[in-house]
Amino acid sequence: MSEKRTEISELGEFGLIDQLAKGALIKNPSTLKGIGDDGAVLDAGDQVTVVSTDLLLEGVHFDLAYTPLPHLGFKAVAVNVSDIAAMNAIPTQITVSLALSNRFSVEAVQALYEGIYAACEQYGVDLVGGDTTASRSGLVISVTAMGQAKKEQLSYRSGAKENDILCVTGDLGAALVGLQILEREKQVYLSNPDMKPELEKYTVVTGRQLRPDARMDIIHELRELGVVPSSMIDISDGLASEIFHLCKASGVGATIYEDKLPIDKQTFDTAVELNLDPITCVLNGGEDYELLFTIDQKDFTKLEKHPDVHFIGHITKAEEGKFLVTKSGTAVQIKAQGWKHF
Amino acid sequence: MSEKRTEISELGEFGLIDQLAKGALIKNPSTLKGIGDDGAVLDAGDQVTVVSTDLLLEGVHFDLAYTPLPHLGFKAVAVNVSDIAAMNAIPTQITVSLALSNRFSVEAVQALYEGIYAACEQYGVDLVGGDTTASRSGLVISVTAMGQAKKEQLSYRSGAKENDILCVTGDLGAALVGLQILEREKQVYLSNPDMKPELEKYTVVTGRQLRPDARMDIIHELRELGVVPSSMIDISDGLASEIFHLCKASGVGATIYEDKLPIDKQTFDTAVELNLDPITCVLNGGEDYELLFTIDQKDFTKLEKHPDVHFIGHITKAEEGKFLVTKSGTAVQIKAQGWKHF
Repeated sequence: MSEKRTEISELGEFGLIDQLAKGALIKNPSTLKGIGDDGAVLDAGDQVTVVSTDLLLEGVHFDLAYTPLPHLGFKAVAVNVSDIAAMNAIPTQITVSLALSNRFSVEAVQALYEGIYAACEQYGVDLVGGDTTASRSGLVISVTAMGQAKKEQLSYRSGAKENDILCVTGDLGAALVGLQILEREKQVYLSNPDMKPELEKYTVVTGRQLRPDARMDIIHELRELGVVPSSMIDISDGLASEIFHLCKASGVGATIYEDKLPIDKQTFDTAVELNLDPITCVLNGGEDYELLFTIDQKDFTKLEKHPDVHFIGHITKAEEGKFLVTKSGTAVQIKAQGWKHF
Repeated sequence: MSEKRTEISELGEFGLIDQLAKGALIKNPSTLKGIGDDGAVLDAGDQVTVVSTDLLLEGVHFDLAYTPLPHLGFKAVAVNVSDIAAMNAIPTQITVSLALSNRFSVEAVQALYEGIYAACEQYGVDLVGGDTTASRSGLVISVTAMGQAKKEQLSYRSGAKENDILCVTGDLGAALVGLQILEREKQVYLSNPDMKPELEKYTVVTGRQLRPDARMDIIHELRELGVVPSSMIDISDGLASEIFHLCKASGVGATIYEDKLPIDKQTFDTAVELNLDPITCVLNGGEDYELLFTIDQKDFTKLEKHPDVHFIGHITKAEEGKFLVTKSGTAVQIKAQGWKHF
């Protein structure tokens, strides 16, 4: 056969999605927003319904060698709740589909659900359905989350305007550094099963990797403070990559400042120990599930004193590009280098 | 370790789901119906939103040796639309998540989406999101469908009442017989790659297996006729299994009649050719995605002349059990023997 074969790696994940999304014609008036944001937005009368879905595969997204099943269940829910949060909506329901090989006992599945239900409890969501099936190989978890918001409360990726302030919650890079530690200790264990993994001094970074928290606390606080971010995205692929998504969707540029980027001391020290550049971890580390958002300058005073919101830069015109101003005052162009699955 | 290990096969798929579902506490007033029907039902003001999700794995749910990718894409959407139909709701949106190994080219993924979009077109649904990721082994497809209905239009599994008439749409057993043919021809091909599969005379049964249609036509017709089924379920696991689900949820029994069971001539002839009992194929064959529903006797005249609705029996008291009356007049107990994944 002489049919053309294009490797998926040639397009990349986002290129593939862009290409496939071209066929997605909107026919229903209730579809307010389809592909292209953290969640889809469906009209539901007074409120809108926000929908997001994630697929997690053993060997690709998690390694059961060091991932406790309750943590995995929690994380599978949290990453979807984080997408709902990134739309500035309140999560309400989830569905969970599982594919299980006979390697898994009922007790193992129960341990997984322990984490799923703990996350349901923490985020106030109801598990309302799913599908359970056999798998010939590894564990597959597919979660879909739905949330509610008023239309005027939604924050899309596309709403950032020039002079808006760029904010991030929490601290960044911890999940990537945690993953490196877990991988290192796994290799140590595999080469000598009598060695006990040394993880005590890395609980912050490994905890962030294994059991990240969706920042619903921030969403609720923003509501109390009367702040609706002009744009928002959750940091799943890395800060640099998310800045690119946000700037592209909003048609703007951005300048951020190295000395404003939040990093935990343990993340910094562990990165140095691993010979990784801490700032690279902050810029390109994925899976922190913190929020990146923009606010109008008039909202600054409302958030100024918030201990967990950091003002890392501002939005510029698109033609000004995307820059990081280093501690020494040099402006370097930001490259989007997020997680690459393909 | 002396921890207890229970094999999933000991509980079975439904046993496992029952056990896990016990932890699903409903906290949100918008959750009208959680686990336990074809779809979850969420309050959305005037209307309700119905949500359903399915996970399809290569090697478990489909075999790419004989499944054209556009058909597979169509089917992945159709089986979810069928769940929305089974709630008597109108599907409006879907999300599609894919896990792909590097075995798949961009062209292959496009072929899959060709079928997905064909189904979107046919059922009037919008593709609004999803997730695309790498897979180390086979193709994984996870689809979530959402639909709309007015509360009073919904048909739950639990609404069947004594003396209601049991109806099925279309004909049954074709998808199972089609699968047997496809498996047979695959084996022939594997043992001699020069042999061309003989599939011309089996297009009805193989078509039903490869590209089943969700019966949205029936749902729209029921609305036009002013009939709201008192209960409904789609036939994914087999008629006998679905009768069990419906009777259990409604707290009733059922009697069906062998001579009323609809079977296509090609299904019948092919079953005989394969040394399968045609009635067993009708009772236990899965994946036909026809609808099983009950109507109040007063609605009978409205449907009486419908060419594609068959009246196969009636609902009885729970203590009367579930029986099939054979052509010779003998009542035999129905056994639920659907698809077993585990």
